[in-house]
Amino acid sequence: MPSVVNGAPTRLERVRALLDAHDLDAILLSRSANKRWLSGFVLQRGEEATSGYAGTLVVTRDRKLLLADARYIEQAALDAPDWELILAGDSIADELAGLWSGLGVRRCGAEAEVLSHGRWQAIAAAAPEIELVALDGDLSTLREIKEAGEQDTVARACALTDRCFAYLLTIIRPGLTELEISWEIEDWFRANGAESLAFDSLVLVGAHASMPHGHPAETPVEVGKVLLIDFGCQVDGYRSDMTRTVFVGEPDAEARRLYQLVADAQAAAFARCAEGVPGAAIDAVARDVISAAGFGEAFSHGLGHGIGLETHEAPSLRLYPGPLRAGMTFTLEPGIYLPGRIGIRIEDDVLLTESGPRYLTTSPRDLIVI
Amino acid sequence: MPSVVNGAPTRLERVRALLDAHDLDAILLSRSANKRWLSGFVLQRGEEATSGYAGTLVVTRDRKLLLADARYIEQAALDAPDWELILAGDSIADELAGLWSGLGVRRCGAEAEVLSHGRWQAIAAAAPEIELVALDGDLSTLREIKEAGEQDTVARACALTDRCFAYLLTIIRPGLTELEISWEIEDWFRANGAESLAFDSLVLVGAHASMPHGHPAETPVEVGKVLLIDFGCQVDGYRSDMTRTVFVGEPDAEARRLYQLVADAQAAAFARCAEGVPGAAIDAVARDVISAAGFGEAFSHGLGHGIGLETHEAPSLRLYPGPLRAGMTFTLEPGIYLPGRIGIRIEDDVLLTESGPRYLTTSPRDLIVI
Repeated sequence: MPSVVNGAPTRLERVRALLDAHDLDAILLSRSANKRWLSGFVLQRGEEATSGYAGTLVVTRDRKLLLADARYIEQAALDAPDWELILAGDSIADELAGLWSGLGVRRCGAEAEVLSHGRWQAIAAAAPEIELVALDGDLSTLREIKEAGEQDTVARACALTDRCFAYLLTIIRPGLTELEISWEIEDWFRANGAESLAFDSLVLVGAHASMPHGHPAETPVEVGKVLLIDFGCQVDGYRSDMTRTVFVGEPDAEARRLYQLVADAQAAAFARCAEGVPGAAIDAVARDVISAAGFGEAFSHGLGHGIGLETHEAPSLRLYPGPLRAGMTFTLEPGIYLPGRIGIRIEDDVLLTESGPRYLTTSPRDLIVI
Repeated sequence: MPSVVNGAPTRLERVRALLDAHDLDAILLSRSANKRWLSGFVLQRGEEATSGYAGTLVVTRDRKLLLADARYIEQAALDAPDWELILAGDSIADELAGLWSGLGVRRCGAEAEVLSHGRWQAIAAAAPEIELVALDGDLSTLREIKEAGEQDTVARACALTDRCFAYLLTIIRPGLTELEISWEIEDWFRANGAESLAFDSLVLVGAHASMPHGHPAETPVEVGKVLLIDFGCQVDGYRSDMTRTVFVGEPDAEARRLYQLVADAQAAAFARCAEGVPGAAIDAVARDVISAAGFGEAFSHGLGHGIGLETHEAPSLRLYPGPLRAGMTFTLEPGIYLPGRIGIRIEDDVLLTESGPRYLTTSPRDLIVI
């Protein structure tokens, strides 16, 4: 639920400030995380895609509406008791067309990255007098800096994930399969208070680990191979995301060297994190370490991404030219992937404070041999 | 993986037939289920939203391309070995703009319901000479009629779900909470061979059951209240979706009457299922039974939806004017919801054959008292 930070503008006030900034009469919110952040309305995982526009929010200067169809209206009343509920029919386009003039709306901001092209076109076609304006970045930016309560919740998700990793170290042994380990992760999280996984765990043995987004299969843990585990959980809506790459049996010199390179890249990036430093500069620090050793091509993704109500949210470090600010929570996850051979990634969640970065993920980053 | 039905056109041939039907040079496929159905490429749950355009397919008359970024390229090669792989950079719009002329494309079909408005606009802006044409319905229609192998897989998912329900009946007792039961479901499925849940289970006690899409909480099962369980699993990519509403303690006469009404509505709809009957007519049969008893308003959603690689796919019975055809798999799920009091739904998965409908869900539909 929204909370008021002492003296600071409320979440609703910050959304409404965008009305003036972009000369809008209304803002239509469709992204689940934005809807939950602003209204408290919780949509189930997976419902977003199938349910069309369950819980669409419309914010004007003096009203705040939640449109929900019959399937969601009662839940919406519980989740967002201070919003005006509108029982909506099958077509959001028709529903909105009937509302605009009563609300005095001519220009409306909307999320072009979330609304499908078909739905956007339908909304526009049903009310040709209305101008729709893409407003994604401005809305995402509102969630970049976490309030104290949000920071605590991300930290709790990270702490739970650390505890899960400690548990995993006690059970991992040769013969256990990728799928079995991913199940252990899910079991442990729900037995220990997580709402859900943040995402399907990636548990990858040996050469599988060279696929940054491969899916777990029946491959067993084996002596002489790495085991890459990328996992996270959700606590009160907020998420964690961590990766460790552990060695089963003593690694050879080359594997040790690669691991150390990734760890050095992360440490260098962490050390560079500070208010005012552009995200892209942090990415570059890690990339330079890996490139200098000749593996630049093998670090095939961005250094990190914001984490909060979504597993991947703003800021994406590689693409973020703006200065990092205190209150941001993001991952640092350099990696080296040599197709068919090995993959190594170390990923931690970090909170940037006024006095510097703080690891929310506190599991050891040193090379672990099982 | 695609399979060839004796003499029938292959999946690829059926997609290519749309090129002629709509005067197109290419079709861009972005929907996960369509990509898996056509190429075998499997995207993890949750990856679709965050990963932009992992595994986008482009089909022309003589080529078939799979665009994947560095995170997915190795997995794509394993999943879709007979597709031309293109290692794609950050922007699908730029990537496609560089491909069109070499492929001889001027008019391209695309999924307007899946591509975000922002992405659609970017693709169009990067290649102004290309005309993009919305092609959602035609592509979804290709998956409506299941091949024999697909029917078997849906049936296996349904059979596993029946077994899970039988297990649940052995453990449900007063005091067990909605969340605990939803965890039991997930545990049972993965211990018994499901790939995953089809969706987050809905486990709703008493008045919660009046919210067709409420989410499970800490509410315990209680004597004198209903327990509504809506759940399903995924087996080899294909899904099941069933609902049972059971009574904890003897129901009163009114509750019995409501249950029988829902059961009668479903039986009447099932009896009406046959090749050539419009989906909307099946919906009307069930709705008439409930309306005649004065509860029409309380049946606040459609009668059913197609089920296969997606939990909700074509045909949506209420909206489907076309004739049902043999090979379709869909749910029949009438319900009555009285806010604050009670909700009752009975949902089964059905396969339409040339000789009539067949229940794939075989759990008892009679009133169950625990």
